[in-house]
Amino acid sequence: MISFRQANELVINALKKLTPGTELVSILDAQGRTIAEDVTSDVDLPSFNNSAMDGFAIRFDQSIRSWIVKGEIQAGNFTNSGNYSSSGSLDNLSAVSIMTGSRLPDGFDTVIPIEDAFVREDNLILNTNARLVKGMNVSKKGQDVLKGETVLRKGTFLKAPQIAALAACGKSQVRVFERLKIGVLVTGDELIRIEQTPSGDKIRASNLYSILSAIKEMGMIALNFGIARDNRSEIKAAMAFALEKCDVLVTTGGVSVGKYDFVKDISGELGIETVFHKINIKPGKPVLFGVKRDNGRLQPVFGLPGNPVSSLVTFYLLVKANMLKCFGLDELTSVKAILRGDIVKTDSKRHFIRGFLERDENGNVSASPVGLESSGNLVQMSVSNCLIVIEEERINPLSGEEVECIMI
Amino acid sequence: MISFRQANELVINALKKLTPGTELVSILDAQGRTIAEDVTSDVDLPSFNNSAMDGFAIRFDQSIRSWIVKGEIQAGNFTNSGNYSSSGSLDNLSAVSIMTGSRLPDGFDTVIPIEDAFVREDNLILNTNARLVKGMNVSKKGQDVLKGETVLRKGTFLKAPQIAALAACGKSQVRVFERLKIGVLVTGDELIRIEQTPSGDKIRASNLYSILSAIKEMGMIALNFGIARDNRSEIKAAMAFALEKCDVLVTTGGVSVGKYDFVKDISGELGIETVFHKINIKPGKPVLFGVKRDNGRLQPVFGLPGNPVSSLVTFYLLVKANMLKCFGLDELTSVKAILRGDIVKTDSKRHFIRGFLERDENGNVSASPVGLESSGNLVQMSVSNCLIVIEEERINPLSGEEVECIMI
Repeated sequence: MISFRQANELVINALKKLTPGTELVSILDAQGRTIAEDVTSDVDLPSFNNSAMDGFAIRFDQSIRSWIVKGEIQAGNFTNSGNYSSSGSLDNLSAVSIMTGSRLPDGFDTVIPIEDAFVREDNLILNTNARLVKGMNVSKKGQDVLKGETVLRKGTFLKAPQIAALAACGKSQVRVFERLKIGVLVTGDELIRIEQTPSGDKIRASNLYSILSAIKEMGMIALNFGIARDNRSEIKAAMAFALEKCDVLVTTGGVSVGKYDFVKDISGELGIETVFHKINIKPGKPVLFGVKRDNGRLQPVFGLPGNPVSSLVTFYLLVKANMLKCFGLDELTSVKAILRGDIVKTDSKRHFIRGFLERDENGNVSASPVGLESSGNLVQMSVSNCLIVIEEERINPLSGEEVECIMI
Repeated sequence: MISFRQANELVINALKKLTPGTELVSILDAQGRTIAEDVTSDVDLPSFNNSAMDGFAIRFDQSIRSWIVKGEIQAGNFTNSGNYSSSGSLDNLSAVSIMTGSRLPDGFDTVIPIEDAFVREDNLILNTNARLVKGMNVSKKGQDVLKGETVLRKGTFLKAPQIAALAACGKSQVRVFERLKIGVLVTGDELIRIEQTPSGDKIRASNLYSILSAIKEMGMIALNFGIARDNRSEIKAAMAFALEKCDVLVTTGGVSVGKYDFVKDISGELGIETVFHKINIKPGKPVLFGVKRDNGRLQPVFGLPGNPVSSLVTFYLLVKANMLKCFGLDELTSVKAILRGDIVKTDSKRHFIRGFLERDENGNVSASPVGLESSGNLVQMSVSNCLIVIEEERINPLSGEEVECIMI
């Protein structure tokens, strides 16, 4: 049995060896994808000296505190002999009314904010105590990025701010990694399709749906391989079929040590090398992780436990969290919170308890455990929005203590 | 000019009056949607008394500390005359080996964990100091939810845990609200299509792409109404056309007080009532918000500023954050962090500064400002993952102070 930290290191090592293909997509379809190329700008940004404020553009001269307003510049309609030049050529005594983002006349270098001066007839007069510094309130050509400079690096996850940068740099299409195909196969004689009504000791295969949904939430392609019975040949055939179709395979069930827990044996028969079996966590101890190697290609295979809460929790912890780390999503996915309610924990496993994370009016974050009394309680899990982490060495955390919470 | 808090209240009031239609979707397509019906369970959950542990099922009797093991129960293959009954009928002295989740024999009520007893030949003997309490380690029929009980309420946002609950309750299809159609129209004579190379004082319409992407990230339908010139008739025609096609309209540019800022006037001509114009924030002060009412239908119209950073920041703050509040996403979207770097702020506006939020090894969260020196810097915004909030009354926050950060 290995630690949670070791398990994650081993999973990340394997995931890093995945070699997804790439495809060219419109940047309008690129959000939620990971960029597969370094992108450089085809222009200087800004492309021209422009005003950072609404105000008046001038040519800085230490000795001058008033100017003659010779027109105005409207964004997008600048020409060097434009609107303002009808009032004559521009010199050190000239000012031009200018809006934020508009281009400065050539040779002009400084912008006086509208609130720092007043206009009387055509004269602009600086307020007595206003500050005047050469170059102030001007965004200079190329100050954000120079033509040819790298703007986004391969491996960056694309959301709206990155799409904006691509658009500004003239990338209307961008090369991204193909979405990984993640297959899900659930195993167990107790499982029935959700359209059926359970009788006896059957349960609906809710696993299949929760994990397929979690894969879609990650922006990956979810492949549904359905339900296999606890029968060696059925599971083996289903896993072999799934391995041909997907980049990563997730199974549930059959990984404990019972007489009918076939998944580990079958994995061996299918050429999947076991990387680890069993982690010192709760829920999810029996997780099996292996890799299938074939001509330099590597397929990670996650054997998650069959309990519907355990399977989704271990999917979040081992599959989703590590996938996001490996495929560029650099975000805050866990926070510290104040525990509301005592938790009984006397073993040395790392526990992940479903919880509800919320902020009060003062911005203090608290986490209330839910579903403590029933480990398979999907209804309570459906009101949780985090996993409360209780570390290995921690015993019986009490209400009011600080805990780490993984947002789900 | 109104406060940020007032602005959000007014936006939420309007958004709550939106009346999206509903549609029935497979639960495999329901993740990221908001449920439009209360859902009840068609079964008790669990549907039968089952074991919460791997161990031995018994009929509790205070006086008995050892039992005869009469078989085992495999999940999904229980019958009351099943495998175990080959060893004879069950009485108080009988135990049955049982796996987590498996059904208990009728009349059996207690499970001894595997580690609390040992088996010698066919005899199960409780460890001397092991605890034995009637009903222990049993999940009882109906303890999570009873048949007919409400499991998810209308308005709940659906992610994997909620999909799991729907699956367990027999909902293979679920009624969800239709995705809102949010249109984007960018205005300005300075804007060119991103495929073009800017010359003179033109800039690429990156706004259009960032906001369309942000809409898609929210799971809504993004409608692209392109670029309109700073020309009354062109903007009016484009807004009128867009209003016919979308539920919510977002425009950028033309909302300041310059000679060419037509959007407010045109909104009035199109029957859009101004709810507010200008908020005490930076960036984004000139935001215009209005509603168009038509036969009881209400369309919110957001007029965001033209600066590409300001438009995306105000989209996040006013459109996205409030939409998520109104359409069920109940998540932690902001956290407290330690500021890394001083910020100059001497006015009484609420500032939102692009920042990079990260955790160190000890789980401490810090936020470093990015792009302070250039308000329109999309390249720096593309390395940010949060907005650092500097409240109205706060002056020059210093490195080491606590700040609130909105994750983007």
